[in-house]
Amino acid sequence: MSSAAASIADRTWEGAGTAEPLLAELRGALGDAHVLTGADAEGHLTDQHRRLTGRALAVVRPADTAQVAQVVRLARRHRTPIVPQGGNTGLMGAATPDGSGRAIVLSLARLNRVCAIDTDNDTLTVEAGAVLAAVQQAAREAGRLFPLSLGSEGSCTIGGNLATNAGGTQVLRYGNARELVLGLEVVTAEGEVWNGLRKDNTGYALRDLYVGSEGTLGIITAATLKLYPLPQSQHTALLAFGCIHDAIAFLGAARAGFGAGLTAFELMSDTALGLIAQHVPEQPIPLALGAPWYALVELSDSEGEEHARERFEAVVGQSFEDGLVADAAIAESLAQGEALWRLRDEALGEAQKRDGSNVKHDVSVPISRIPDFLAETAAALEERFPGVRPVAFGHLGDGNLHYNVSHPAGGSPSDVFAVEDAIHETVHDSAHAHGGSISAEHGIGQTKRDLLPRYKSAVELDLMRRLKAAFDPLGLLNPGKVLPPAATPLRLHPEASPAP
Amino acid sequence: MSSAAASIADRTWEGAGTAEPLLAELRGALGDAHVLTGADAEGHLTDQHRRLTGRALAVVRPADTAQVAQVVRLARRHRTPIVPQGGNTGLMGAATPDGSGRAIVLSLARLNRVCAIDTDNDTLTVEAGAVLAAVQQAAREAGRLFPLSLGSEGSCTIGGNLATNAGGTQVLRYGNARELVLGLEVVTAEGEVWNGLRKDNTGYALRDLYVGSEGTLGIITAATLKLYPLPQSQHTALLAFGCIHDAIAFLGAARAGFGAGLTAFELMSDTALGLIAQHVPEQPIPLALGAPWYALVELSDSEGEEHARERFEAVVGQSFEDGLVADAAIAESLAQGEALWRLRDEALGEAQKRDGSNVKHDVSVPISRIPDFLAETAAALEERFPGVRPVAFGHLGDGNLHYNVSHPAGGSPSDVFAVEDAIHETVHDSAHAHGGSISAEHGIGQTKRDLLPRYKSAVELDLMRRLKAAFDPLGLLNPGKVLPPAATPLRLHPEASPAP
Repeated sequence: MSSAAASIADRTWEGAGTAEPLLAELRGALGDAHVLTGADAEGHLTDQHRRLTGRALAVVRPADTAQVAQVVRLARRHRTPIVPQGGNTGLMGAATPDGSGRAIVLSLARLNRVCAIDTDNDTLTVEAGAVLAAVQQAAREAGRLFPLSLGSEGSCTIGGNLATNAGGTQVLRYGNARELVLGLEVVTAEGEVWNGLRKDNTGYALRDLYVGSEGTLGIITAATLKLYPLPQSQHTALLAFGCIHDAIAFLGAARAGFGAGLTAFELMSDTALGLIAQHVPEQPIPLALGAPWYALVELSDSEGEEHARERFEAVVGQSFEDGLVADAAIAESLAQGEALWRLRDEALGEAQKRDGSNVKHDVSVPISRIPDFLAETAAALEERFPGVRPVAFGHLGDGNLHYNVSHPAGGSPSDVFAVEDAIHETVHDSAHAHGGSISAEHGIGQTKRDLLPRYKSAVELDLMRRLKAAFDPLGLLNPGKVLPPAATPLRLHPEASPAP
Repeated sequence: MSSAAASIADRTWEGAGTAEPLLAELRGALGDAHVLTGADAEGHLTDQHRRLTGRALAVVRPADTAQVAQVVRLARRHRTPIVPQGGNTGLMGAATPDGSGRAIVLSLARLNRVCAIDTDNDTLTVEAGAVLAAVQQAAREAGRLFPLSLGSEGSCTIGGNLATNAGGTQVLRYGNARELVLGLEVVTAEGEVWNGLRKDNTGYALRDLYVGSEGTLGIITAATLKLYPLPQSQHTALLAFGCIHDAIAFLGAARAGFGAGLTAFELMSDTALGLIAQHVPEQPIPLALGAPWYALVELSDSEGEEHARERFEAVVGQSFEDGLVADAAIAESLAQGEALWRLRDEALGEAQKRDGSNVKHDVSVPISRIPDFLAETAAALEERFPGVRPVAFGHLGDGNLHYNVSHPAGGSPSDVFAVEDAIHETVHDSAHAHGGSISAEHGIGQTKRDLLPRYKSAVELDLMRRLKAAFDPLGLLNPGKVLPPAATPLRLHPEASPAP
């Protein structure tokens, strides 16, 4: 036993002796350099926000799909759980092992090749460990757009994006990750390879099932993705609205006027912009504060600069005349457009960080219910936790709100984190009561797992458990993620159903 | 026992006596008028093309979701299979019972209410038995577009569209039925109701799994659908191309120039247009025949008539100058546009019928592989079946080709139907060899069921069987559809997998 292996095994696994044969087999299969233990493994055992830390027997780094399958077969023979990991940027802890130290972490980082680009077919085939920005770049070099875009794109992987069904700022036009994939290659719990990379509408939708399953049903090793034409021109503006109803009415007008050209509609509350003004003074805000709602709106045009400008100004101008838009700052150059996007992409996160962290949510609410959701959630929070400040922003076009809750002015983050669970419950209950959902683009992982029984029916949880048992009967694929522990035994037996 | 019941029971089920208790319970639950037997049931036992006829204990017509669930629980208690049926327009026999006479047909026709339209949220909630045209109409009356559009829209139901993951002429822009649904309500094999109508990205993708499962995993009873803005203007043209490569290059130019405005690209071969000229002389064809390929192209514009015309003429004009487009007939009026669509929607089908029926396919091939697929398939057919005439047309923008094979000139349909299976194999093998699939928008049903093992891996078939066993352990939901009989036992036991 090498000293490094001894160190991590001692730290993580009381029955270390029983793990050694597996580690030796993994080293034999992948080479010593790709079975990380000790300090080399540390970075893989904690999530990026350092809120969750787990333990593991080892972190393994297979080189290709065949090695992933081999690792799964070896782990399976030793009844050892497997935690798949991409860029380790997930927000819900799906890629962090639990504290038992029984699992291995399977990093997809070395599977990072762009395998094929087909511009006639507008598809790109890529391995799961490719970084999202590299996938975007490969598409751009071929004169195409891969539209998935989100904050961590410089380090998250496409496999992780698919495993969590990631969203992002372009979801209004192009949909979540699931809608951007035509085919998958997946290693099953038995260590077999399902090659489903070709577009295929026959049979059950395995592709769609694996997307969003966070490594609990299989391990995505490659994907065939959809590409789109690069827009000829993009126009961006920051708009102010006198009330949330006006913002929603303008969204309707922009949908009608821009059609599919409307590629982003990022809502931000006055509180959100106020935090930027206070904590990130170097970030310009081209509108006066004081309106309750703002939105960053993007038009992508397939015809060119002049047409885009005319079209943009026509729709915004008409809405201004109609009284829907209270104020507008239209970017006059690429640089101004980028500055507006920095407001949303960077300054808003930085401002919340400098203000002290807050209690975060990723809810989805039908757009027509958002006004009531906002009013009632704010009232419920104020009643239960006087003075807390809701910081609401998000992809309004998709009904996805990041409804974060900051501590009262003059207080400190511990004011809200001391009652974190109660705040979560208030916000999630309200989203649910308004026909919404408690996660839109971040997944479930370990963090939201135990919330599901409150918001999902027993029928749905039962169907999910049947799926898990069917695809992973030994329960070795990312155990403890997504699925809450069963309060009652699985209802797989046909006689257990209710009488008619 | 009523005489009608006796008649169908005698005709369908040798052990009629054992069926009577179930029939009595169904009558008690639904009322006599909604348990059809005898002549009243006949229309539900044969597919619309009258190629498949089955038998059944009865056809039941529940009024709502609760009654659907009740029927499932009653049938389950009697271990009686259930064949769900919408408009009975399917092409693969998924809604036709088998010949055993053991099943009941469950018609969703009475569940035809439009439950809610939410224009702020751009969603429509509808029961499964609503006719597609009624769904389109309800959307239109609310100032919105529900884009699913296909030949049988006047009689097919949205539930059937979802169960088969239907495609249609707008799939290039809006995707198959699966991409148009946000939520589902489903009755499970146990007769429980899963209410998944709200948009919800948490947990496993049950919604996407039920879509396309053709009633074998659950019975869809309602759906929440996506709506889109109505286009302000649409322009249609018939274009001629000197070779298939030019048609594909023009598709690329139209994608780049029209962006999401490109809503249809319907390819038709010279043989296809020639059949119309020969058999449907009342249908005008505004271009000279003689080019090998034609396409009906549609631009949908969100800005208006003048803009649409300019844009259309700019892209088509440039491609004409570039030599990609050999000839073009641009519709100058709504009436001319509708006449062009009739060419594709009605005349083409009628011409094939008048020519004598042909052997039909619904393949999907990556667009970049279509030229080789066309050349090699035609050569393989000519070698094996000299003189047969491929009639190729389809949704080129989605790689979906209806590659039909007509009898040699001077012969009769029996020439091709005598070798139907060999023709299917030739066409399907070629599609598969070119990275394609044997069904794009028609589903699998019973007709293509036994073809799957030739084109799907054992791994995939095994995963499909696990899904079926997990969701329908008694095998009562539409048995014999989609899933081929297992040649080997289910590999559900964890030890049955290969050694590492």
